[in-house]
Amino acid sequence: MPYFDTASAAPLHPVARQALLAALDEGWADPARLYREGRRARLLLDAAREAAAEAVGCRPDELTFTPSGTRAVHSGISGALAGRRRAGRHLVVSAVEHSSVLHSAAAHEAQGGSVSEVPVDRSGAVGAAAYADALREDTALACLQSANHEVGTVQPVAAVADLCRAAGVPLLVDAAQSLGREPVPDGWSLLTGSAHKWGGPSGVGLLAVRKGVRFAVQGPADERESGRAAGFENIPAIVAAAASLRAVRAEAAAESVRLRALVDRIRATVAELVPDVEVVGDPVRRLPHLVTFSCLYVDGETLLHELDRAGFSVSSGSSCTSSTLAPSHVLRAMGVLSEGNVRVSLPNGTAEKDVDRFLEVLPRVVAQVRQRLGAPESAPREAAPAASLVVDALGKRCPIPVIELAKVIGEVPVGGTVTVLSDDEAARLDIPAWCAMREQEYVGEEPADRGSAYVVRRLS
Amino acid sequence: MPYFDTASAAPLHPVARQALLAALDEGWADPARLYREGRRARLLLDAAREAAAEAVGCRPDELTFTPSGTRAVHSGISGALAGRRRAGRHLVVSAVEHSSVLHSAAAHEAQGGSVSEVPVDRSGAVGAAAYADALREDTALACLQSANHEVGTVQPVAAVADLCRAAGVPLLVDAAQSLGREPVPDGWSLLTGSAHKWGGPSGVGLLAVRKGVRFAVQGPADERESGRAAGFENIPAIVAAAASLRAVRAEAAAESVRLRALVDRIRATVAELVPDVEVVGDPVRRLPHLVTFSCLYVDGETLLHELDRAGFSVSSGSSCTSSTLAPSHVLRAMGVLSEGNVRVSLPNGTAEKDVDRFLEVLPRVVAQVRQRLGAPESAPREAAPAASLVVDALGKRCPIPVIELAKVIGEVPVGGTVTVLSDDEAARLDIPAWCAMREQEYVGEEPADRGSAYVVRRLS
Repeated sequence: MPYFDTASAAPLHPVARQALLAALDEGWADPARLYREGRRARLLLDAAREAAAEAVGCRPDELTFTPSGTRAVHSGISGALAGRRRAGRHLVVSAVEHSSVLHSAAAHEAQGGSVSEVPVDRSGAVGAAAYADALREDTALACLQSANHEVGTVQPVAAVADLCRAAGVPLLVDAAQSLGREPVPDGWSLLTGSAHKWGGPSGVGLLAVRKGVRFAVQGPADERESGRAAGFENIPAIVAAAASLRAVRAEAAAESVRLRALVDRIRATVAELVPDVEVVGDPVRRLPHLVTFSCLYVDGETLLHELDRAGFSVSSGSSCTSSTLAPSHVLRAMGVLSEGNVRVSLPNGTAEKDVDRFLEVLPRVVAQVRQRLGAPESAPREAAPAASLVVDALGKRCPIPVIELAKVIGEVPVGGTVTVLSDDEAARLDIPAWCAMREQEYVGEEPADRGSAYVVRRLS
Repeated sequence: MPYFDTASAAPLHPVARQALLAALDEGWADPARLYREGRRARLLLDAAREAAAEAVGCRPDELTFTPSGTRAVHSGISGALAGRRRAGRHLVVSAVEHSSVLHSAAAHEAQGGSVSEVPVDRSGAVGAAAYADALREDTALACLQSANHEVGTVQPVAAVADLCRAAGVPLLVDAAQSLGREPVPDGWSLLTGSAHKWGGPSGVGLLAVRKGVRFAVQGPADERESGRAAGFENIPAIVAAAASLRAVRAEAAAESVRLRALVDRIRATVAELVPDVEVVGDPVRRLPHLVTFSCLYVDGETLLHELDRAGFSVSSGSSCTSSTLAPSHVLRAMGVLSEGNVRVSLPNGTAEKDVDRFLEVLPRVVAQVRQRLGAPESAPREAAPAASLVVDALGKRCPIPVIELAKVIGEVPVGGTVTVLSDDEAARLDIPAWCAMREQEYVGEEPADRGSAYVVRRLS
C-alpha cells in the first residue's frame, strides 16, 4: 500500500530502528550521573551530537536536541529575538513558512513585536529583492525555510543569507523538509530540523545556533542541552535520529535523482491526463520528491478519501481537509487554486510501478468526484445572454461556489459579469484562480450582507 | 550490577518495550491525517490517552501528553498562572519541589510575579498550617509534590488540597515520583508526571488539567494535544508510556510492600553500621523504595565513585556532585547534613541479596574515604585548652571544613568556641548539622573578608 505523504512523517528508517533498539538498553539513564549507566548514556548522547553536527555542518557545541522540530523553531525564534532585543523587535518571515514559524511570529506580535511577511511569487519562492525590502534598522531576526513543505519550491537561501549578513541580521533557516535530502544551504545563523521527517523517530528536533549569534533562552531555566531544551534528554530517540540522518543523507544523492524523475513524470502526466488541473510549485528549483496540484471542481476531502480507498495516502491543503476550514496559507500566499488540492511526497525507495498505478487511478477518481458534484464537463453552453447574473452560493463549501460559477458563465454575454455570493473562505482564493485558469477577468471582491460578492467578467 | 537510582530514571519496563516496538510500526504517521496510517496512529493515541487517564483518575479530555515531565510542569504552571491572571500573580510552592517547579517560579518572579516558598520540617514535609499561611487573596496557583524526589517524604496533599479548595486556589500536584507506585492523591486541579520515572520511555510527560480550571496556554499556538503541547505527537513513546503505567501500577501493591521492607532494613542497618551518619526523611510517611542518608567527614563524589567501582549506582545531593557546587536545595530546606550524601532508590524487582551486599560494602567504603581524608576516627583528643580557636578552611571544599572543625573541637575547653572560616557553600548547611549530630552549640554565622565565619561552642 503506497504511502505518498513522507513530507508529513516518514516511517522509521531501518537504521533508526536498529539504533533505537540498541540505545533503549544502553541509553536510558540520566547522562548527568556519574555511575556507569549515566556515563554510557552520556557517551551515546555525545556521539549522536557529533554525528548530527557533522551532517548539519556545525560544531557539536552549536547543536542542541529538542523534543520536536516545532519546539526547535519556537525556541530558536524566541531565543534569537530575546538575544537581539537591543537591536529592535522586528521579525521578518516569508509568507510560506511552516506554521511553527508563523505561530511564533504571531506570538511575538501579541507581545508587542512587529512582523513583516515577505510575499512569494506564483511558484512559491520569495524574491531576494522583496526580502531585502523587508529588512529594517530594527530587524532582530529573519526566517526563511530551505524549501517549502507544501509545494516543494526551494527558497533562495544563499542570496537571502548574503543580504542578512550585510544588514547584520541573523537568519534562521528552517531546514525541516530538506535536511535528509539536500546539502544544507550556507550562511545560516540558526538552523532547525525534525527527525521524523528524515526517517528518525518522533520526539527529536534539532536546533543549531552558530557561535557568536546572540541568544537568550526563554522560559524556566534548565541545565540540560546547554540550557536550550528543558527536560530529560530522550537519548534512545536522539541516537536513532542521528543514525538515520547519516543514513538518509548517504542514500540521498542516488535516490534524489530517481525520485526527481518520478516526480517529473507525475507533473507531466497529471497535467496531461487530468482536465482543469493546476500543477503548482517551481518545476525545477524544487525538492526532489514532492509535487502538488489542484483540481478544479473537486472537493479535497472526498478526493483524499477516494485515493485512500484506492490505496494511496496523500495529503491536501484544501480548506475542507483543514480543521479551520481555511485553505492552506501557502497556496493562499501563492495565489493558486486550492480546491481539489493534492500533495504527493514520495518516500525513499518508492517503486516506479506504484507511481504508475497512482497515475492510472487519479484521473478516474477525479472524474468520478466531479461527476458526483455535478461539475461542468466541457466548455459552458451558450444560452440566452443576460448582461449579468448573481449566483447565491451562501452556506456552500468548496468546491461548490466555483462549480456554480462555471455552470453559469456561459449564460452571460462576453463582457457581462457573474457575481458569486459566498461565505466560504476558500472562494476568495479559488474564484480568482479559476479566472486565471479559464482566462476570464476577476473584477474583484465586495462586502455583502453575508460573506462576500466575487465579481467575474466573461472575456471569451 | 545493581542500579539503585530509579528515582532519576528507570530502565524500560518489558511491557513498555513491547508496546514501543509494536507502535513504531503502527503509530509513526500524523494522527491528524485522514488516510489509513493516520487513522491507525490516531486510534493508538486515543487508546493510550484513555489508559493513562484511567490510571491517573481523570477524563481522557483532561489529559495531555507533553515531551517530558519538566515540560508538563512548565506548561502547567505557566498556563494556570496566566488563566488566573485576574485573581492575582502570587504563586505558592513548597521549598522542596523539583527544580522544574522552582525554576518556573523563578521565571514567574522575573516577569514580575510574586512567589512564596512554604518551608518544610526536618523530615522534609510541609505543614498544612504553614501552607495555609502562605495562601493569599491574590494567590493564582499553589504547587505541592506528592512525595519528595530526594528524601522520599510524602507530602500532606489531601490536607493542602482542602485548604486550597476552601481558598479557591487551584493546586498543581507534581506526582512524578509516585505516579507508578501509589494511588494518586485526591483533590488536585492540575497533575504532572514523567514516564521515564515509571519505566516508560524518555520523551513523555503528562499534564492533566481538571475541567473548569482556568488555563491559558502560553507560547506559540499549536493545534495538537488540545493546544497544550506543541509539536508532532510522539505516539510510539506515548503508547509505551501508557502501557507501562498500567503495568507498574498493577505490580505496585505487592512490590511496594517488599521494597518498603528492604528500605527499612537499609535505614536501620546504615544507622547501626556506619558511624556519624544521618538517615534523613520521614521514616514512615515515605515512598516505599527510596532512602537518603548523609555521612559526616565524607566527600560525596568520592563516595559515589567508590560505590560505582563496587558495582552500585546511587546518586547524591552533596555539593561536590552538583554542577553548581551547592548542596541540594531539598537538604538545605530540611536543614540536614549534606556531606557524604547518598540517595538509594530501588527499582521494582530489586533482589534482597543486592541490598545485603550494599549494606556490607557501604560501611567499608565510608571508612576508607574517611581515612583518606584524615577524618577524626573517634571522640576528639583532650589537649592544652585555649578559650577559642580559628580554623582557616578557605578554598577547601566539603567535607574538609567539617573535618577541620571536628579535629580541633577537643582543643578548646567546654564553653570555648571554634570559628571556621569557609567559602564553601556546603559549610553553611553542614556545620550546623554537625553541631546537631554532635550536640555542640552552633552560635551562628558572621560575614568575613572571604566567605563566612561559622562559630561553634563546645558543650561537652
